[in-house]
This record gives sequence, C-alpha cells and structure tokens, in this order.
Amino acid sequence: MTGMKKTYQEVFEEVYEEVEYLPKQGTVADYIPELGTVSENRFGVYLASLDGEYAALGDAYEKFSIQSISKVFTFAMAFDVFGGDLWMRVGVEPSGDPFNSLAQLEYENGIPRNPLINAGALVIADFLLSHFEHPREAFLRFLRKLGNNPDIDYNPKVFESEKTFGYRNAALVNLMKSFGNITHPVAEVLDFYFFQCAIEMTCQELATSFLPFANHGVIPHSGERILTASRAKRLNALMLTCGFYDEAGQFSFKVGLPGKSGVGGGIAAVHPDYYAVAVWSPRLNKKGNSYLGMNFLERLTTKTGMSIF
Amino acid sequence: MTGMKKTYQEVFEEVYEEVEYLPKQGTVADYIPELGTVSENRFGVYLASLDGEYAALGDAYEKFSIQSISKVFTFAMAFDVFGGDLWMRVGVEPSGDPFNSLAQLEYENGIPRNPLINAGALVIADFLLSHFEHPREAFLRFLRKLGNNPDIDYNPKVFESEKTFGYRNAALVNLMKSFGNITHPVAEVLDFYFFQCAIEMTCQELATSFLPFANHGVIPHSGERILTASRAKRLNALMLTCGFYDEAGQFSFKVGLPGKSGVGGGIAAVHPDYYAVAVWSPRLNKKGNSYLGMNFLERLTTKTGMSIF
Amino acid sequence: MTGMKKTYQEVFEEVYEEVEYLPKQGTVADYIPELGTVSENRFGVYLASLDGEYAALGDAYEKFSIQSISKVFTFAMAFDVFGGDLWMRVGVEPSGDPFNSLAQLEYENGIPRNPLINAGALVIADFLLSHFEHPREAFLRFLRKLGNNPDIDYNPKVFESEKTFGYRNAALVNLMKSFGNITHPVAEVLDFYFFQCAIEMTCQELATSFLPFANHGVIPHSGERILTASRAKRLNALMLTCGFYDEAGQFSFKVGLPGKSGVGGGIAAVHPDYYAVAVWSPRLNKKGNSYLGMNFLERLTTKTGMSIF
Amino acid sequence: MTGMKKTYQEVFEEVYEEVEYLPKQGTVADYIPELGTVSENRFGVYLASLDGEYAALGDAYEKFSIQSISKVFTFAMAFDVFGGDLWMRVGVEPSGDPFNSLAQLEYENGIPRNPLINAGALVIADFLLSHFEHPREAFLRFLRKLGNNPDIDYNPKVFESEKTFGYRNAALVNLMKSFGNITHPVAEVLDFYFFQCAIEMTCQELATSFLPFANHGVIPHSGERILTASRAKRLNALMLTCGFYDEAGQFSFKVGLPGKSGVGGGIAAVHPDYYAVAVWSPRLNKKGNSYLGMNFLERLTTKTGMSIF
Repeated sequence: MTGMKKTYQEVFEEVYEEVEYLPKQGTVADYIPELGTVSENRFGVYLASLDGEYAALGDAYEKFSIQSISKVFTFAMAFDVFGGDLWMRVGVEPSGDPFNSLAQLEYENGIPRNPLINAGALVIADFLLSHFEHPREAFLRFLRKLGNNPDIDYNPKVFESEKTFGYRNAALVNLMKSFGNITHPVAEVLDFYFFQCAIEMTCQELATSFLPFANHGVIPHSGERILTASRAKRLNALMLTCGFYDEAGQFSFKVGLPGKSGVGGGIAAVHPDYYAVAVWSPRLNKKGNSYLGMNFLERLTTKTGMSIF
Repeated sequence: MTGMKKTYQEVFEEVYEEVEYLPKQGTVADYIPELGTVSENRFGVYLASLDGEYAALGDAYEKFSIQSISKVFTFAMAFDVFGGDLWMRVGVEPSGDPFNSLAQLEYENGIPRNPLINAGALVIADFLLSHFEHPREAFLRFLRKLGNNPDIDYNPKVFESEKTFGYRNAALVNLMKSFGNITHPVAEVLDFYFFQCAIEMTCQELATSFLPFANHGVIPHSGERILTASRAKRLNALMLTCGFYDEAGQFSFKVGLPGKSGVGGGIAAVHPDYYAVAVWSPRLNKKGNSYLGMNFLERLTTKTGMSIF
Repeated sequence: MTGMKKTYQEVFEEVYEEVEYLPKQGTVADYIPELGTVSENRFGVYLASLDGEYAALGDAYEKFSIQSISKVFTFAMAFDVFGGDLWMRVGVEPSGDPFNSLAQLEYENGIPRNPLINAGALVIADFLLSHFEHPREAFLRFLRKLGNNPDIDYNPKVFESEKTFGYRNAALVNLMKSFGNITHPVAEVLDFYFFQCAIEMTCQELATSFLPFANHGVIPHSGERILTASRAKRLNALMLTCGFYDEAGQFSFKVGLPGKSGVGGGIAAVHPDYYAVAVWSPRLNKKGNSYLGMNFLERLTTKTGMSIF
Repeated sequence: MTGMKKTYQEVFEEVYEEVEYLPKQGTVADYIPELGTVSENRFGVYLASLDGEYAALGDAYEKFSIQSISKVFTFAMAFDVFGGDLWMRVGVEPSGDPFNSLAQLEYENGIPRNPLINAGALVIADFLLSHFEHPREAFLRFLRKLGNNPDIDYNPKVFESEKTFGYRNAALVNLMKSFGNITHPVAEVLDFYFFQCAIEMTCQELATSFLPFANHGVIPHSGERILTASRAKRLNALMLTCGFYDEAGQFSFKVGLPGKSGVGGGIAAVHPDYYAVAVWSPRLNKKGNSYLGMNFLERLTTKTGMSIF
C-alpha cells in the first residue's frame, strides 16, 4: 500500500469526471412500485476515514432506501448476540447460483448459503425476533447509534410496498419453515424483514455506520465496541465473498473491498484500517448492483492503489 | 387383449392371497399429524366395470383421505370449464422431480409441469376460484354426482392439519404468485387446496367416480357427460405420464394403466373401455405411493393380461 | 374404440389434405452437418396393421436417418438378453429435464433416467458390447429380420459426422464411466452408439419393424418371438412415458400412442393389437421432434378415434 | 494490523503444539490410486516473508503432488499473456457447487465459473496450448523460475494415474467442446491438464513461488515482474473468492487470506505485502481441503492478528 499524496476529495473529483461521461446504463429497480419512483440520475458518494478525513460528492446527504445493505446491520447485531450459534442455521459460502435461489435452498434442506442473501437474512431476522422483545425499536436504536443520527428511520410507503409484493420472500420463509429453520410465524419474520429493507439513510450516514467494520468492531466517534475484532474481521470476509449476489467475484476482482449492495442503488464498502465508503446511484446492472456505484468504486481503488489485495 | 374366464372377484382373491404374505414395507405418511393416525394395516380394493360387474375386498367401504387423487377431480372440473386455456398456465409434461420441487418451478418461471403435481393443482384451484362463486360447494356437488353418494365430504381435522403444516404448499403458491401465475389471494388458494386434499372417500366411491374416465367422459349410472371424449382421453394420457410423481414411469411400466395416487395410501386407475379400480393401503414406499396398492395393481393387470399396452 | 368404416389409406389422404396447408414450421437438425443436407420438405408416412392392411403416402419408401428411434431396437435386443438386470444401471422414469441432461445424470450418480434418452442408450450399448462379439453385425441382423429387408444398413457419412461432432455424447459416457456405469472403453461405446444412430430406413421398413411391439412381441410375417408379451407391453409403456424427450407428455396427450422420435425427422408409433405407423418429415420443433410428424399422428388418432386411452 | 513481537517460527511452534493434538480427521484422496499411496500423517509448513524472514516446520522440504494449486500458476501465465481476453471464455465468480459440477457448466453454456475450478483450468490449459509451442516445457520453466529451483518437475506415475482415471475431467472438456469453448483436441487439453496436476513441490518451493502474488507481481529474489500490480491484485481476489471449491467462504471467514488448495493436501496462501505460506497434510475434509492445513492457517492468522480483513 503506497502513501497517498492527494486527498480523498481530490480523488473523488477526478473519478467523478471520468464516470459522469459514462453511458447512462442500467435501470431503476421496480420490483416494488415504491422503489421505481426514485429519479434515476441521482448520484452521491461519501467516504469517512478512520483518521477523521472525509470526502463527499453529489447527493451524499440525500436519503435513499438501503434495502439489502440492511442485512449487514442485522447480521452484525445477531452475530454479537448469538455468535457461532448462527452457523447451525445459516452458512458462510457464496451462493453462486443466481438463477434458482429456491432450488439451492431446497437442495440444502432449508439452510441458506449465507446471511447476506434474502433467505439468510430472513433466518437472521428470525434470530433477532427470538432475542429482542421489540426488534424494530432495537434495530433502529442500533442504526442511530452507528450512524450517529437519532433521525434514521424507515419509509412506511416502501415498507407497505414490500409487504404487498413480497411473494418471493414469502416463498423463501415458508420453504425454510417447512424444513424447521424458521421458529416464528411467517408473517412476523416477513414484517421485520420488510421493515429493515425499508430503512432510509444518506451516503454520509451509511459510510459512518460502516466505519466500525473498518475499525476492528469499534465505533470511532464513541469508542463503543459493537463486535469483537475477530467477528468484525469475519463480517468483512463474509461481505467480500457474499456481498454482491452473483457478482461477488466481480466486485472482489475489480474493487477488492468487502462491501454490500442494495437494489435501492446503494453500495457500502470498507477498507479495513483505513476507511468506509458509501455510494448511491439507482440505475442497476443486470445483476442488481448499482452500475455507476460499482464503476466509481473500481476507479477509486485503482486510482488510490488501495485495496485489501 | 384376451378374453377373461375368471370374474374380477376371483382374480382379486387370487392376487390378495399373493400380496398378503408380502413383507410389511413402507410407512404411513405423517407430514401432517392427522394422516399419521390411520392404522397402517388397512387394506381395501374395489373394481367397477363398465358392463356392471364389480369386485370388492377388505376395507373397500371404509373412508380414507383421498389427498392428491383429488387433483384428478379438480382438473376434470377445470378442463371442462376452461379447456385449452389451462395450458397457458400449466404444462402436460412429467415432472421428473419429486412431487414438490420448487427448483423446477423457479426455473420454469412459475409454470408448473402438469396439473397433477402440487404446484399444478394449486393453479387449477386458482382457476376454479375464478369460475365458481362457492368453489367448495361446487366441488362437493361434483364429487357426490360422480360417486353417486350425497354423503361424500371432507374431514375438518385433516383440513386443519393441512392448513397448520402446509408451509411447503404456501411456498409454492407464493413463488407462483411472484411470477404472476396466481390471481387470487394466497390464503384463498391454499384454503381450497387443503379442502380438496381433505376429502374422504371409500374405494367403492373412488372407483365409481373414476368410471367416467374409462367411459369417454360419461357417467355410466346417469348418462351425464362430464367431459368430451377427447378431453377424457387426454386426462387419461395425463394420468399415465404424470399420475405418480417421480414413479410415473414405474407405474406405467409395471401396471400399464392411467391412474393417480395420494399420500393417504389410495390409488385409483382406469382401463379405458373396461373398468375403474381403487385400492387403499396406507403404507407408502419412498416415492410416496402405496406400497401394497402398486403391488396389487401390478399383479391384477399381469394376471388378467389387461393393460392399455 | 369405435369400428372404422374408412380404410387407413382414406384417412391418410384426409389428414394429408389438412396438414399440407399448415405453415412450414421448424428447422432441419444440423447439429451434425451430414443431417443438415436433407431436403426440408420431404414427407412420408406408412401404416402397417396387424390384419395385413397397409397405407402409404409421399416419401414412404425413401431412406432417412432413424437416429434416436434406434434406441427402441437396441433396448429391445438388450431387454431380451438381460431382462431385469438392466434396471441396476438404468431407470424407467421420464427425464423431465431437457435443460440439463448432464445435471440430472450427475445428481443421480451416473444412472440414466431411462433407456430412450442418450445417456440410457449409451448404457444399453455398453450392455450389448458385453453380450455380442460382433455387436454391429448382430444389430444389423436384428434390424433386417424386423424390417424384413436384407438391405437395411447404416450411412457411413452420417456415422463419421456423428463421430466428429459427438462431444456431448462423449461427455455423457465419460461422466457415467467416472461413476462406474460404463464397463467398456469410452471410444467403443461411442462407436457403437454412433453406428446405431446412423442406420437408415424407410417409413415402410420402420413401421414393419415396429409391428412386433403392437403384436405382444411376435414378428407377424415370420411368427418369431423377439420379446415376451410382458416385455413387449413394458417396452410400449416406456415409449409412452419416455419416447419424446421433454415432449413425452404432449405426445401422450395429443396422440395417445407409444412411440419414439429421432432428430432425422422420423417418428414410429404403435397402437397395441392394431397397427404400427411411421412418419417422416425433417423439420423439427423446438423440442427436437418432427413438427409435421406429430401433427399428422395427432390428427390420425383423432380422426380414427383410436388411441390407447 | 498490529506489530509482531514473536518471530514467525515461534508462532509456527505455538500453533503446531495446538494442532498436533487435534483428532486425526479426514482421509487421503484416493480418486486416483497413485495419490492414495502417500502416508496420511505427513505434515509440513513453510512461510516466506517479503522482508526475508522465513519459518519451517515438519516435512517442509518434502515433495508432494500440488494438484489443483497448479491452477494458480497456469492462470498467472495465461493472465499475463491474454489479459482480459480470458473473460470471454471463463468467469470470475465463485462456483457455489462442488468442484466438478457439470450441471452448472451445462446451464451456463460451457463457460466455467472461474479459472480455479477444474472446468476453468481446462479452458486456461486450452489458452496456453494456443500460445506456447511447447506448453509443458514453458510451464516447467515458469515454475522453476518462481520456485527458484531448476529441479521442479512432474511425477510420471501420478500423471499416468490421472490419465487413466480422468473420466470426469474428460466429461468436462467434451461438454465444453460441444459448446465451442475448447479449441484444441480433447486429448491434448487433458494431457496438459494432467501434467500440471502431477507437478511436485515442497512447502518451501510452493511458498517461494507464491511470494510474487504477495509482492504486487514481482519475484522478490530476482526482481522480475511476472504480472502487473493490478493483475496480481486480481489474482489474489480470485483466490479469495474461488480458491477452495465450495469452502471458499469458510476459508475467507476463518483464515482471511487469498489461497488455493489441492487434493494432494497442500494449501498455499498469501498475505499481500507481507508473506506467502504453504502447508501440507494429506488428510482431507469432506470438501476436499486439507483438514490440518486449514486448521493451522486459521490459528496462524488468529494468533498473529494478521489477515487482509
């Protein structure tokens, strides 16, 4: 890893000059109508470094639906509470198969491949329902603490939209319940899951919330530990191999950072010991990851010469 | 096809002498608790021929849960009403996979392989809900007419048991709904489906109800046509290739008659132009078909030299 | 089954008037170049009945490549020699899955679903290599006896073409050999298999060769038995459920006769106790079955009211 | 990353004291007889750091069959020659399935998931055959240069054994050739592939050969660049997500280093900017990775607090 002369802000601006002329590829997710209402040309990015430097660009302070990025947060909560007991009911392997998420789940007797795909996050939700009397509130408290902002909340319209069109997730929970891998009523698990997906954050809040994962499990601004160093390391390993559906290899290959994407167009990633970064651009590529977001991060790590590899 | 000297009753007794000494193999279905309460040693068989002869043995007049055999009846109703429009939403090919594989359904975009597997029957249920204002009542009327018995009804305990443990079927309906292949609310489709599975009939009623399929679509005792001759032929073709989950080939190979099995231990089959037969024995082989029932029918067609091939 | 007034020849001509105006759909198989040289507009059909009547139309006396129809003949030979021992190494279930023949074979540990798909026919070839010192010659003798014509032979150009482009079949044999389900060298098994696929016959010869399957295993013109009645019945059952790749259900549903298709555009089928029929038209539908051939047979059984159902 | 007080040799000895009392789990690979002749209790490990420190233990200077670890070397050669052209014919995603699944390959039209599974390595072999007139010699030259030892060679007995029992690999090549993704004759591709698998190296040689991947593509002892820094980074990313068959997630999760295993019981891994390490113990876990090797590396990175995450 070579020393950097330029500030992150300077690199941001250089990269942005390159990507803003890229063809406008990809389409906004519309599998739930409420997500489809976002303007497709929004773009924001925010980086927070462990030594206090930050960089911001575009719509870095605009709220957007974090969707599957929430899986990192619920997993972190559950990992802290349940530790290795999680691995009886969910794996840590990449899923590999885009085309038949239910096929794999059926073949593997209702044990999801990892906690960062839908099926795995539903099992994690089931874990959280076992531990917290008021899981929604507990989750919001956790997010507000990480993001250092008491206003972080969910979007009720997105929540309702998820609920109305969430048949595939309902299929996943029912299938896992038929294998005995869901302990709460189907509706309760789905309710919490749709809630977590409907959380809204800004790039700034998201990057700030990911900083503890770059910092061996400790929240920099408060010094509070949310995960042991060993578990923080493992969460990063998990994001690297499983954070981008069936494009995890591509992201590792091109960007080289642990991270997680969401169909709202957000991506959050960390460079352990250095920084966390969040980017948002709603146009998705065919794999469901932000087209411009991935592009921006690839250029960022290439230009800075900084990746974990 | 050679002429028979013996009566069907004589053949029944010969075959029974052979099979009663077979090892007691297989286990009673217990995927829903209520089914597991049946005594595993029950055995009944009934044959009704088109020229009025009949044969009966053992528990031929005992009620049992017809389960998946009900799929033949709902399909017949829907085929009569919707004809070829069914094929936009369900196929006519053998499934090749265990009877409740979600993998295939996912790969094939929510279009079930055929109407005699769970997914297909759920689509057929959805069709019936579109046509009948009171589908349960319409279905009971249809069965009572076929079976020539106004007392045919469902078992509320089995129905409730299905409902409580029907997560896999709920997964199927939700998955198909995510593909747009279910038009009614998930709960309504499941409710009707569990109702049809909970119907109880005797071997005598079941054989009588299958006679129209051996008779080109006409109920012998009333002369009423329930299906055109062409559709009755097609229903038989469908039973032959798809009636026994992933043992359809075996049944065709060994027995050589169109038929349908249920996890309650029943099997109903027809020899077009000759007879319908129903057998019941609750011990199931690994494929979910009645062990003794298949055995009895294999010997019946071998001994009589009568099969469609 | 209703009595027929019209001769088969009259029905042939009626049906032909209907199908000759059908749109020219489908394409000639070209997975091996030599097959692609056939004129796409050829059409022939021949029916031989057990009571000596016959009907012929179009190119009924032209040779064409029988391809996969040969699987019925090799299976019949092997069934006669090995009987039930075959079922240790090959199943009798429909394959269901078009899209991943190797997937299924891998999942099921190298045991093919049935003898009428490629993998199964390769196992049958392996069986024949174990029994016959000169399997090619034995096979030709068998075909010439069935077809009542000493000139039946293979096409060396097609054979070479198969051999040059047979990578998928080589993959199948190698995979099965890795599971221990092939006993001879890979090259020998492939050699015999490509030989059998390269056999050429006319519709007249093919229909004549299938007559024993309609006649309980006995060659009508010589009285020689080639299969027991029980095995002939089982072969028919197998053709019905497995004879048309993943269109077996459709064929059973629409035509209602046991049969087998080949990518050369031929289809042979039998109505047990009545007749055998062979049709040839090289344009294939997407499933690899003769478009016009299936159409002709569907109308034939509908018009005559004769099917096994 | 915290500073280390202890030498690597001291850590090695501490870890060894822990693992030597572990239950003797796993079994020696015997899918080819020649591999099964190795004594199951061999154990060696060697670490070479970029600043010249090294550590060695047990059988660190014994030759063993590197098997699939060779895939890293052939990929490095091909990546240097062909760069991004490789990605037309092979992916960079984890396979999610056992290491030799034909199903996935068939579904994805003959394009292997990544270069570190068998199918992908066979495509890479095909690439090398296109570029080098004498690919075996070129490969040996490359290895001898990396390992700094002119004696590195292959084991002819292992090579012959691979060749005799390599039916599954033959199935893979034939399947890919049927999709047009193999340009050379099947036998030539297999020949080279079996050759690379039969290479023998010591832990010392293996660790030394992996040092350039920790050193941004430059051989430390000679200063020669074998890959650009960007490609070295990408190779590491690939090893992390794809280096351990369907246990890549586990290895990333527990060890946190890019690496590659072989069924000979070897594992080689790198910590970019720090060191390369190779461990050898022939007992394999169910996933085909060295049981003790994985265990040793997990404790090594935990004890040193050094992983890429």
